[in-house]
Amino acid sequence: MNRHPVVKIGLLGLGTVGSGVVKMLENHPEALLERSGNDVEITKILVRDLDKQRAVDVPRERLTQNVAEIIQDPEIDIIIEVMGGEEETKQIVLAALEQGKHVVTANKDLIALHGAELSRIAEENGVELHYEAAVAGAIPILRALRQSMAADQIVEVMGIVNGTTNYILSKMTGEGASYDEVLAEAQMLGYAEADPYADVSGLDAARKMAILASIAFHRPVALADVAIQGIEKITQEKIAAARAQGGVIKLIGRAQRVGADVLVSVGPMVLSNDHPLALVNDSYNAVHVRGEALGEAMFYGRGAGMMPTASAVVGDLLAVLRSPQMAQGHAELRLAGVLR
Amino acid sequence: MNRHPVVKIGLLGLGTVGSGVVKMLENHPEALLERSGNDVEITKILVRDLDKQRAVDVPRERLTQNVAEIIQDPEIDIIIEVMGGEEETKQIVLAALEQGKHVVTANKDLIALHGAELSRIAEENGVELHYEAAVAGAIPILRALRQSMAADQIVEVMGIVNGTTNYILSKMTGEGASYDEVLAEAQMLGYAEADPYADVSGLDAARKMAILASIAFHRPVALADVAIQGIEKITQEKIAAARAQGGVIKLIGRAQRVGADVLVSVGPMVLSNDHPLALVNDSYNAVHVRGEALGEAMFYGRGAGMMPTASAVVGDLLAVLRSPQMAQGHAELRLAGVLR
Repeated sequence: MNRHPVVKIGLLGLGTVGSGVVKMLENHPEALLERSGNDVEITKILVRDLDKQRAVDVPRERLTQNVAEIIQDPEIDIIIEVMGGEEETKQIVLAALEQGKHVVTANKDLIALHGAELSRIAEENGVELHYEAAVAGAIPILRALRQSMAADQIVEVMGIVNGTTNYILSKMTGEGASYDEVLAEAQMLGYAEADPYADVSGLDAARKMAILASIAFHRPVALADVAIQGIEKITQEKIAAARAQGGVIKLIGRAQRVGADVLVSVGPMVLSNDHPLALVNDSYNAVHVRGEALGEAMFYGRGAGMMPTASAVVGDLLAVLRSPQMAQGHAELRLAGVLR
Repeated sequence: MNRHPVVKIGLLGLGTVGSGVVKMLENHPEALLERSGNDVEITKILVRDLDKQRAVDVPRERLTQNVAEIIQDPEIDIIIEVMGGEEETKQIVLAALEQGKHVVTANKDLIALHGAELSRIAEENGVELHYEAAVAGAIPILRALRQSMAADQIVEVMGIVNGTTNYILSKMTGEGASYDEVLAEAQMLGYAEADPYADVSGLDAARKMAILASIAFHRPVALADVAIQGIEKITQEKIAAARAQGGVIKLIGRAQRVGADVLVSVGPMVLSNDHPLALVNDSYNAVHVRGEALGEAMFYGRGAGMMPTASAVVGDLLAVLRSPQMAQGHAELRLAGVLR
């Protein structure tokens, strides 16, 4: 028998992040085997268009437009969801969890809206659900909060968790250009969407803060509970006034413990120049944590982009491969004489 | 039967960090149970002096001067080693691993010298060995490298991993005082030891860099392979010259991948003022990582101190409680009808 069982993976979506995941597994195929004892293979990929030109080469016969072919395939153990979407995607992920499949997703909208329910269903079905890439991309802040800091009492989490608005504010601060000018430039460079509403309104940051707060404070925090203000009204006058008082304006997400409750908000804030977050510029993200025992800590890195996001997804995949559930599955197969 | 088995812990050492661990478990006794499904209890503590006044209250009957009472106790599943020391401690940790006990240690000297051997023995015995607190205290950099970034190819790790020297250089830079003046002040304030050799010579940082490099690059890196230079010869003239060229002097540990090899060094370096590490001041630590997929990331926090270090130790304890080994142990007990 094979000492290294090949774990089969279904990939939902082959856009930027999906292609990045395929590329990472291709570039270093030995990495997961060495670090988990399992070989992996992406055996089926859900796409909208079978004939589209792709950033990566994948055998045509692995592509399908039929999601049931993937989530009902008994050979597939793990689903990687990088297709985006909310309601329909929720139904797909639910069905996958109920089929006993582990799920890794990069979908912040899905998790901000339905994370608590999906986590409960995952637990009921004895499978893993990971979504590190949904918040602050390549920065492993969720894992740090869940693991290293989970034994501590977290007091406050502050984050720059939207790269587009941080890019716009950095450019306005550094170059003295107006909001409209910088936004237009950011759109041209691909740092901002044609419709920038979700970013500049603070909604995207609020979704990520709801997820961060849920994990930091061990209780569900709904998007509806987050007070949200965007950066649309930030002017050069305000930036100059902040500078005059030794500070800089950033779009800050903030989650604080208040007794048994949690307060979460997103909005422009003046940070003193010596605050660690004041120095986070361009499209970088960072999350600053205060814990009772820990003191202050900060995590800084790329919040988005093909390979940074893919690296977080593949990190989650590795976590699934090493999880007690997978190990226990193997132990049971060994006891039953199926694996040695 | 009890749904939540109580996991028994033996604590080796009740100094600053050991007392911090006891305090954390006392402050939030429910945290580990909620987050791992296990209650824990420190049932025995190794001390040198049974009658010494302690920072925490522990029942006198739990204290012992006989280490065999702890590592040979079949009821104890996990050993927390915070007593320090090298050769003798190594023999104790080896014996514990061979007795099938999981080990959590904060001992960088032990791990820098014997980490590879101890990890091998742990693996052979099917037990966990964790040492997050040994490098950069409360910053969960080892876990991030082992887990989130393990699927990536790390290119470079740069760190400010010694708080004493960073404090001295920050004060010299900020206040214009001489090395000797600042060292004397740091000794008075307890930021530097009476014998500051291990810190100011770069040796302490080198030990931590050997551990970091081993994990980042997945191969053993010995302390003897680290090129080491200290900060004893840093003068105000050098600091002024660095400032004139837009930089600042920091004691930097650097580990780089060079083909199949790894180069590791510790020494004073001029960092440009816009480098993320240039802004890490006082006794703070930070580790900057460049990965192929990840891009740049930085982790910042307290590198030492009672509660920050204890928080890393208890984070490791939580990792052991959630490990496949513990879960599998419970699964086997369930199958054998011992647990339900």
